[in-house]
Amino acid sequence: MNILLTTKLPIEGFTTISEHNIIMPEAPKFTPEELITRLADADILLSTFDYKITAEMIAAAPNLKLITNFGVGFNNVDIAAARDRGIPVTNTPGPVIEPTAEHAFTLMLAICHRTAELDRRMRQPNSDIEFGVMNNLGIAIYGKTLGIIGMGNIGQSIAGRAVACGMKIIYNNRRRLPEEIEQRYNAQYVDLETLLRTSDFVSLNLPYTPDSHHIINEDTLSMMKQGAVLINTARGAHIDEAALVRHLRSGHLYGAALDVYEFEPKVTPELLELDNVVLSPHIGTGTIDGRIAMCHCCSDNINWFLNGEHHKMNRVN
Amino acid sequence: MNILLTTKLPIEGFTTISEHNIIMPEAPKFTPEELITRLADADILLSTFDYKITAEMIAAAPNLKLITNFGVGFNNVDIAAARDRGIPVTNTPGPVIEPTAEHAFTLMLAICHRTAELDRRMRQPNSDIEFGVMNNLGIAIYGKTLGIIGMGNIGQSIAGRAVACGMKIIYNNRRRLPEEIEQRYNAQYVDLETLLRTSDFVSLNLPYTPDSHHIINEDTLSMMKQGAVLINTARGAHIDEAALVRHLRSGHLYGAALDVYEFEPKVTPELLELDNVVLSPHIGTGTIDGRIAMCHCCSDNINWFLNGEHHKMNRVN
Repeated sequence: MNILLTTKLPIEGFTTISEHNIIMPEAPKFTPEELITRLADADILLSTFDYKITAEMIAAAPNLKLITNFGVGFNNVDIAAARDRGIPVTNTPGPVIEPTAEHAFTLMLAICHRTAELDRRMRQPNSDIEFGVMNNLGIAIYGKTLGIIGMGNIGQSIAGRAVACGMKIIYNNRRRLPEEIEQRYNAQYVDLETLLRTSDFVSLNLPYTPDSHHIINEDTLSMMKQGAVLINTARGAHIDEAALVRHLRSGHLYGAALDVYEFEPKVTPELLELDNVVLSPHIGTGTIDGRIAMCHCCSDNINWFLNGEHHKMNRVN
Repeated sequence: MNILLTTKLPIEGFTTISEHNIIMPEAPKFTPEELITRLADADILLSTFDYKITAEMIAAAPNLKLITNFGVGFNNVDIAAARDRGIPVTNTPGPVIEPTAEHAFTLMLAICHRTAELDRRMRQPNSDIEFGVMNNLGIAIYGKTLGIIGMGNIGQSIAGRAVACGMKIIYNNRRRLPEEIEQRYNAQYVDLETLLRTSDFVSLNLPYTPDSHHIINEDTLSMMKQGAVLINTARGAHIDEAALVRHLRSGHLYGAALDVYEFEPKVTPELLELDNVVLSPHIGTGTIDGRIAMCHCCSDNINWFLNGEHHKMNRVN
């Protein structure tokens, strides 16, 4: 089997599929043109979440049998085009749970404790930072209410951390969760508007779909509490960034913590100028250990596909 | 009673002692000279952890009956001089526990996920940050071992958070803790050398005493694991910063997260140039809510003292 990777990944993540012909770029990524050429004899495509797989690419791969996407999100793949050809698309839901929850939690704490801002200002040549009892104060998460929009595995993993750090959990989800899961996090199901109006912290952890496009917009931002904090480690286009900038500039929101961007990899320039924002370059799942675990998960999906164990696959289409 | 504050603090924290004459500066702090003048008729001194109370100051206060220090640490007060005059010194252990644990946890996560470094680099005019699956990777705390040196209230509060985030806890303390507390955090008591040799993360949470001066030095740093992380939210002089810089530059340590400094408020200039360091300006307890809670705790100590309920006081000498 020819297994084509869009992106250079750690080869130690592919020990269980080493009998096959694994093709990956020398450079960090193939150019789209290089990829189209190589798709001519690819049996399986392993794509990464930051690489767009278009209908044109799928059409250029007559032998393509499987697309195994590296990441839990899969809005980078033209799912309809794959479906039309009967090509299954898989994702890697398991290994991203803990890293993404950990990163979301890191960003939430960092914006509250002004971690990036104060570190940056301390390093400036003539730093304006003065040590002092009443200087540089932040806000605590302890005792506050965290509203989680999208209470899947990642949302629940964040909830577990938040409860241990003294937070109260409310959530909104397509479906209400079973009572035993709610009890595990002492989490209360609420409608979206109630969540926005009562949360001190709002974390976005839902998949991107046309329905969730700009779920955070001028209207919904206006519902948020004075001094609230917004955290997005899901997908950039959940947020209307122009509206967010207005609510950050006015001081309505205390701050925002963002790992993903509406026009990724471009970051709205106004965000780069605000001290009440902490930014990271889409590294929600980005630890070395996490990356290798994701490679293993892609390999598992390939083996399940090839061995006819289709029911085990993390299929998304 | 004349209650003299070294530092301007939020007046809403002193409602329970409002019947007394509360004297605080207009500026953030009194100068030491101003303070000495005003000590002449002070009955009670409320000092903050970043304000040195010398033997000379204590001698300048003939009516002084109590020093109530704002903070859990009290190495800013000449305890011996106070003791010689029979003046009790109190601290504020309760309200600092959760904020300091939360801040230590924030810094630990921030150094792992490169929060300050990546935010800073993203904001640079011609940013060198490229989004990409294998770019900007950090390390996880999940599944790692946290070694806590000083397992008092703050250390235990960090342990609770760490366990919920998937960490294993080992600790060193003057006294081994009761088994029920160890079981609460699944924490294992070890000697200092074992802790240093086996921890992926080492957090300093012990009070500063002459014995703990430079507890982290060239010798003890050399015992730490390749790729380990050091977190200090206790007192700066626990660490020989020159030695720490060597171990950060060489890549022996993955990073360090520091809220306190050996020569505070001066920060060793080499630390300011290292990307594998996250710095904050001694804000371990620094949230507005936390500050007001600390004012209330000082007020309680004053009332307990004046009402003869000395057994309730948070006395440290």
